[in-house]
Amino acid sequence: MTARPANAHQARLLRLLRDGGPTSRARLGDEVELSRSKLAVEVDRLLETGLVVADGLAASRGGRRSHNVRLSPGLRFLGIDIGATSVDVAVTGPELEILGHLNQPMDVREGPVAVFEQVLAMVAKLKHDGLAEGFDGAGIGVPGPVRFPEGVPVAPPIMPGWDGFPVREALSQELGCPVLVDNDVNLMALGEQQAGVARSVRDFFCVKIGTGIGCGIVVGGEVHRGTTGSAGDIGHIQAEPEGRPCACGNRGCLEAYFGGAALARDAEAAARDGSSPELAARLAVAGRLSGPDVAAAAAAGDAAALGLIRDGGTRTGQVIAGLVSFFNPGLVVIGGGVTGLGHTLLASIRTQVYRQSLPLATGNLPLVLGELGQLAGVTGATRLISDHLFSPA
Amino acid sequence: MTARPANAHQARLLRLLRDGGPTSRARLGDEVELSRSKLAVEVDRLLETGLVVADGLAASRGGRRSHNVRLSPGLRFLGIDIGATSVDVAVTGPELEILGHLNQPMDVREGPVAVFEQVLAMVAKLKHDGLAEGFDGAGIGVPGPVRFPEGVPVAPPIMPGWDGFPVREALSQELGCPVLVDNDVNLMALGEQQAGVARSVRDFFCVKIGTGIGCGIVVGGEVHRGTTGSAGDIGHIQAEPEGRPCACGNRGCLEAYFGGAALARDAEAAARDGSSPELAARLAVAGRLSGPDVAAAAAAGDAAALGLIRDGGTRTGQVIAGLVSFFNPGLVVIGGGVTGLGHTLLASIRTQVYRQSLPLATGNLPLVLGELGQLAGVTGATRLISDHLFSPA
Repeated sequence: MTARPANAHQARLLRLLRDGGPTSRARLGDEVELSRSKLAVEVDRLLETGLVVADGLAASRGGRRSHNVRLSPGLRFLGIDIGATSVDVAVTGPELEILGHLNQPMDVREGPVAVFEQVLAMVAKLKHDGLAEGFDGAGIGVPGPVRFPEGVPVAPPIMPGWDGFPVREALSQELGCPVLVDNDVNLMALGEQQAGVARSVRDFFCVKIGTGIGCGIVVGGEVHRGTTGSAGDIGHIQAEPEGRPCACGNRGCLEAYFGGAALARDAEAAARDGSSPELAARLAVAGRLSGPDVAAAAAAGDAAALGLIRDGGTRTGQVIAGLVSFFNPGLVVIGGGVTGLGHTLLASIRTQVYRQSLPLATGNLPLVLGELGQLAGVTGATRLISDHLFSPA
Repeated sequence: MTARPANAHQARLLRLLRDGGPTSRARLGDEVELSRSKLAVEVDRLLETGLVVADGLAASRGGRRSHNVRLSPGLRFLGIDIGATSVDVAVTGPELEILGHLNQPMDVREGPVAVFEQVLAMVAKLKHDGLAEGFDGAGIGVPGPVRFPEGVPVAPPIMPGWDGFPVREALSQELGCPVLVDNDVNLMALGEQQAGVARSVRDFFCVKIGTGIGCGIVVGGEVHRGTTGSAGDIGHIQAEPEGRPCACGNRGCLEAYFGGAALARDAEAAARDGSSPELAARLAVAGRLSGPDVAAAAAAGDAAALGLIRDGGTRTGQVIAGLVSFFNPGLVVIGGGVTGLGHTLLASIRTQVYRQSLPLATGNLPLVLGELGQLAGVTGATRLISDHLFSPA
């Protein structure tokens, strides 16, 4: 895609078509507050660029039938979501509908060269399946803070070898298209805003509980990245003064109590000290434990496993309660791998938030699981790059 | 002031003149990205409304000297800042320069009728002093959450009798001018942004430690009020799980440990239990203690008083540290009556924040006292109403 919208009106029209699909000129006119003649000029210019194509006649609204237009069906966006232990790659069409998706285990600690080799092989596979010949743009999420304008990870604690690596530039060269890089949690929030539970919500945050715990913040419809790109890094907020030692060197951090890493540690301890027969049996077979083991043990009625989930939810709820009082969001979304723990976890988080935050802030506050699961990040990634491309050049 | 700017360009020009004072047409042209002829049209229209007046010739920048314009010197804004125990009223000119200011003790619990009677008497006094005949607009801050669009306090915990009182409407009728109502802490943040330590900072928050503790949040240059107007209500964030009981019914809230009310309670306890001779002497004279007593005792080297300030700063710093990790601001401002405790307090807060927040978020984070003191709220109030009036009608 070489064409870009020439002005804010065209950008608005492109986003409307992305989010609403084929639309009549008449309806577009209702949305953008342009005169009929000015609208026609802008739509015609977009048709000339090839970004937009005619799509037949719309249903009658009385009087002459209006012509439908839509985004070029040939537009292709690529979404990449690098987690700590797995990677998702997806190809979308112009309306960010997912045409194909791959998920593979991966270790982010292997560094950017090895990870990109794997990612590019996954991309080649999706291309080979006939989903795309090339891409108009790509978005990529990484599990750490990012200097957003440059697309470079900054001092990411769980990503040794990535500090300062020019992710945006390197990937843009490999893919031959514009690329934007963001923190994975911001992309999860954007994904839920684009196609999930946060549609039409302007102020919300999205807590991702994976190996670690992070938070994507949306203010007035836009991601808030903070002054140095580290906004939402809530895993090291203190949950307990002088509490458990944390890998970061402080004490009492939320991640010292919960998240995939803490949960695995506590589950293995419960297996070994005899408090959980279910977890002990699983540990004997697998040699190690992780979130899904705890979920399965809890589902089998194991009290120790249920206790781990409840305690983790309470700690997470404590921290979220403070953030709700501070930020007064319209919605809180919980997502990430640990949401496999399901409604026991959600119930503990909710109990703590509703008990501890100000009633005025929680009166109408939905606190829900994300809807998009594994696809939230890649959806957010394509939303991010399409927002960029559908902005005035 | 009946005139309002007719479009966004005029609004921009009015704000530039408010914040920059008399300015040449040439310099305005540099700022607003309008062609010379279009700029001339907009400035001429503003001159016709009377909002802007000619102000002689500017200094030469080479070539023909440009004409200066400025806001009409007759513009008058009123700022009112209602605290828990005192009220500030100030009159400003067009550039929000304070022409006169009154501060009086007051008890917000006496309810809106009694408080407004006092406020209107103070306004009458300022008018009688010749500072204004009438007002073009007024801003007012109250110490509790506000439903901002309607200008109505909502369930304000320390303001019995104010819940649902139509502050905006009542005051607008009394004063005969447009009025906006906001939380006092938001106005403090706006004041520091307008004329204090936060000038030119786009993302910051401002913690006000008065009788209670609240926080004004600025995102992208705009106050973030939250979904129900309670954003920044950090006094009841949990500082200690299962900690001290708080007046709100929960345990371990920040305000259970610090703020004017907690400090007075702890100071009187220290006076009575013999741990502080300085505070005991002051209590014997005054019958009660408050922040300034603790400040004076600390200045006299009283160890117990210093300990109270340090402990309060540490608790406050704990909560701020979490908010810094979440929000990644460019600046944190500490203000409010308790800042009379000065640098001992600030040092304790800083120590805790720099120890506990993520290094990436605190690397370049200034954490400073506000510059405007008692005038922050009234300055923010006039900034608020002038922003409103200097917006397209």
